Amino acid sequence: MKSGRPSFHINRRVLISGAALLPALSAIPLTGVAQAQTTTGSSLSSWNDGPAKQAITDFVRATTEQGSPKFVAPEERIATFDQDGTLWVEHPIYSQVVYCLNRVPAVVEKEPKLRNVEPFKTVLSGNREAIAKLSLRDLEKILVATLTGMSVDEFNKEAKTWLTTAKDPRWKRPYTELIYQPMLEVMEYLRANGFKTYIVTGGGQDFVREYSQRVYGVPPEQVVGTAGGTKFGYGNDGKPFLTKEPKLLLNDDKAGKPEGIHLMIGRRPCAAFGNSDGDRQMLEYTGAGEGARLMMLVMHDDAKREYAYGPAQGLPPSKVGTFTQALYDEAKKKSWTVISMKNDWKKIFSFE
Amino acid sequence: MKSGRPSFHINRRVLISGAALLPALSAIPLTGVAQAQTTTGSSLSSWNDGPAKQAITDFVRATTEQGSPKFVAPEERIATFDQDGTLWVEHPIYSQVVYCLNRVPAVVEKEPKLRNVEPFKTVLSGNREAIAKLSLRDLEKILVATLTGMSVDEFNKEAKTWLTTAKDPRWKRPYTELIYQPMLEVMEYLRANGFKTYIVTGGGQDFVREYSQRVYGVPPEQVVGTAGGTKFGYGNDGKPFLTKEPKLLLNDDKAGKPEGIHLMIGRRPCAAFGNSDGDRQMLEYTGAGEGARLMMLVMHDDAKREYAYGPAQGLPPSKVGTFTQALYDEAKKKSWTVISMKNDWKKIFSFE
Repeated sequence: MKSGRPSFHINRRVLISGAALLPALSAIPLTGVAQAQTTTGSSLSSWNDGPAKQAITDFVRATTEQGSPKFVAPEERIATFDQDGTLWVEHPIYSQVVYCLNRVPAVVEKEPKLRNVEPFKTVLSGNREAIAKLSLRDLEKILVATLTGMSVDEFNKEAKTWLTTAKDPRWKRPYTELIYQPMLEVMEYLRANGFKTYIVTGGGQDFVREYSQRVYGVPPEQVVGTAGGTKFGYGNDGKPFLTKEPKLLLNDDKAGKPEGIHLMIGRRPCAAFGNSDGDRQMLEYTGAGEGARLMMLVMHDDAKREYAYGPAQGLPPSKVGTFTQALYDEAKKKSWTVISMKNDWKKIFSFE
Repeated sequence: MKSGRPSFHINRRVLISGAALLPALSAIPLTGVAQAQTTTGSSLSSWNDGPAKQAITDFVRATTEQGSPKFVAPEERIATFDQDGTLWVEHPIYSQVVYCLNRVPAVVEKEPKLRNVEPFKTVLSGNREAIAKLSLRDLEKILVATLTGMSVDEFNKEAKTWLTTAKDPRWKRPYTELIYQPMLEVMEYLRANGFKTYIVTGGGQDFVREYSQRVYGVPPEQVVGTAGGTKFGYGNDGKPFLTKEPKLLLNDDKAGKPEGIHLMIGRRPCAAFGNSDGDRQMLEYTGAGEGARLMMLVMHDDAKREYAYGPAQGLPPSKVGTFTQALYDEAKKKSWTVISMKNDWKKIFSFE
């Protein structure tokens, strides 16, 4: 764990991704999820036939069919999913970063002396170019100011409100509708076959928990994310409550992902899904277990329907979700499955 | 969280309780648990009729019967149980402390220079009186030496071996058979009515997870305990593994219990069970939620069948599981239910 540190000192990937967790007044009816749980058949209807879809159905058959030499006991069926870029859109900026930037005016209203202090001044200016140039240190300050210092209940309320109102500028929809329909189908298919599906995200744990049930059918207790400490105390009315502290307990990115999985789940997953170098260790850790395994990486190679970035396979590099050629090569060497959004997915969003 | 600290600095209660987690080649057949899940009727057969049993059945009826004004949605049904003194025997010494002391010879064999270094020298002497007088600082050293520095897999293997061989000196049975039968029945009854049962223990999370499924029917991912960090790395064969680090992430005692519940579960429990001042904040936090609530405290007042210690109600004080008169008074004031082992329990252990 990168934890045990007294304050938020995290790399850009995590900081931004730490911001990347964002939910949804989603359009996915929970009844659909429930129905999927009563069947074990594949409903991967948004997937084109091909090696990626085949890898998923082969894995489920091998682990769940009675008599299969690779049968996995139901309680051992754990599947973990990265969120940003794996379950929903992360480009060009993690949604939780947008949330943090949007929260700055409210923070300044509560603490007016911040109005003329950087980086808050720049954020308030609305100058997009200047905001994009903020340093890591500045982003850390914004993260701490907008994600800590309030009660857990206050934070949940604020996040919920934002999620119902904020919209992605390209699709003009709540961020929580920008979920990859094929990945939802994989989650539902796995759950229908007895798997517990977990989100394991560099994004903020409390943030993602606010919408995980509604959007993904994943209950809050199955969200592992970058997590800060809380402090138990009493209000003036004697009522106990928890305050979110600026203390990093779990930096749930890169090596922090297997560490977080051990802390929060205590079992090694049989299947893991990611899309970037931040997910490499989670896939390696998953792959090192015995028995049937499924490791998959979503490759963003569809500039028309979503975005195209890599730099694997010559795709243009991105500040978010970096999928290096080295990771691509490791995937090929270890027989992980690379999902081409362009070729493997019939549709990307449910609203298409 | 008392976390974020670079090393184990914990109070005696936690240290010892941190040692208190210990499992069982248990006699409880899992089929029994599974059967209980198919019925919603009360099978609290080891409970005498009285206010304690009544409080449990009233709570379940209020939260699960359709049309009840206090109905709780199934996904919100969370119940948390302290372990030491609430689910199994903690007196006169937490079982996990015994484990740590028993592990000292193996640690010294690997690192012979410790043989003549305190506190290891005293532990190796076998002088019970001297061992009982070891300072907090010394116990910390033993904890760190025996619970960290090895891979997660090695630790699990060692703990499992000890659990199958070590026996409690009074009952001459594995520690994991010293489970309170009435509490097992409460857990099964709650699960049969849609509750997720969690263990929330000052004991070591990894230790309790080793036997929680077998002994309590609680899967590892539903164990919240005192937790140290791990470090992801690669072996000489290139295979990734996790090493247990001497870094405290969660001190799951007192205020650390609600903090740990938020970190690991992310929902407030509707029901909480404890037996000592270390559980006070968990019960307060549970009680501060809306809707039907159940807070219960096990009082050890049965010297004949188990132990009697308090100091609540004039019972003799104990170094473990301190149940103060102040906690007793708070329970009465807040209508928490105090369970008298002597009066409320027909039998204490399944083997009686």
